[in-house]
Amino acid sequence: MKIYEMKVAPNPRRVRMFLAEKGIAMEYVQLDLGKGENLSPEFREKNPMAKVPVLELDDGTCISESMAICRYFEELQPEPALMGRTPLEKAQIEMWQRWIEFYFLMPTGMCFQHSSGYFKDRMTPVPEWGAVCRDNVVKFFERLNRHLEHHRYLVGDQFSIADITALCTVDFNKVNQLGILPEQTHLQRWYKEVSSRPSAKA
Amino acid sequence: MKIYEMKVAPNPRRVRMFLAEKGIAMEYVQLDLGKGENLSPEFREKNPMAKVPVLELDDGTCISESMAICRYFEELQPEPALMGRTPLEKAQIEMWQRWIEFYFLMPTGMCFQHSSGYFKDRMTPVPEWGAVCRDNVVKFFERLNRHLEHHRYLVGDQFSIADITALCTVDFNKVNQLGILPEQTHLQRWYKEVSSRPSAKA
Repeated sequence: MKIYEMKVAPNPRRVRMFLAEKGIAMEYVQLDLGKGENLSPEFREKNPMAKVPVLELDDGTCISESMAICRYFEELQPEPALMGRTPLEKAQIEMWQRWIEFYFLMPTGMCFQHSSGYFKDRMTPVPEWGAVCRDNVVKFFERLNRHLEHHRYLVGDQFSIADITALCTVDFNKVNQLGILPEQTHLQRWYKEVSSRPSAKA
Repeated sequence: MKIYEMKVAPNPRRVRMFLAEKGIAMEYVQLDLGKGENLSPEFREKNPMAKVPVLELDDGTCISESMAICRYFEELQPEPALMGRTPLEKAQIEMWQRWIEFYFLMPTGMCFQHSSGYFKDRMTPVPEWGAVCRDNVVKFFERLNRHLEHHRYLVGDQFSIADITALCTVDFNKVNQLGILPEQTHLQRWYKEVSSRPSAKA
């Protein structure tokens, strides 16, 4: 069993952090996305979308998409639960997880790709769209700060996969020269607590 | 228990279809997004992102995000399973579900919003980005056709939530004047089968 990834990318990091929280050991194989190592026919056999991370099981079965990989391990080893235990907890964590993905991680990634032209050999950067995404990311930092005034973690008192995705997104925003403002004290408090977990270094 | 939605929008439809497959009755409350009925302070109390659908439980707890709503009911009533039964099935269905969302439904929605200016009172349309999304939607129709040459449903022989999301996305593409081409015979075959399920009329 192994995972193909690139260590500095945000999606692989959330899977590494998830597995570290579970205490699951994993072999990692590094690909250089900048050099297009993920675009080879061999890798597209593993993931036709040519994205990382990809989990390859010992029988050769491949699972793409960070959340599908996490789901696999959550089902195999439910504790510690990172996706909730009851139907309501599972729904609330998935809601927040998706809010973080759609309104924070995605615009963060699109701001980077459309503003920097990093992948311009394989996509069409639209700088005006990158600028819209940047505005949305800035607004979401503030939304997070307001939410965390009244909650220890994103979903109440329960550390979850939503916190993992949020932390990886905050840190990846360095590429956009964006981060938590000094006056966003609730977000600062949450960040300090979550980033001090041993899994944050995975 | 009730769901706030707008009947013609694609996300509410996939939740209605999911519930119909499960045989779960639901009360639906219609909002007119064009008139901005989802932007009121009252609705933002239910969903700060101001999107539909939103499930409101009898105690007032609200769950947003179509997949979180579906997850809630899948956990409460596992059969018929629409998100898989084993860890591997669950992961494979979630992988496909997310491929359909990220590479088909999202560009479909962004093509519509950025090309038509339908929501220009509440977002910044970038027509050049809408055109990029349109190209990606066209390519994904062809990718689906190739995949379905060798599979009855998106994930093998198992009808799943991924098929529901794909069907709703195909149909919603009418707003972009896009659809299945006559020569995409595998996709046509799948479409005929999936859209003939009673739940497709929900």
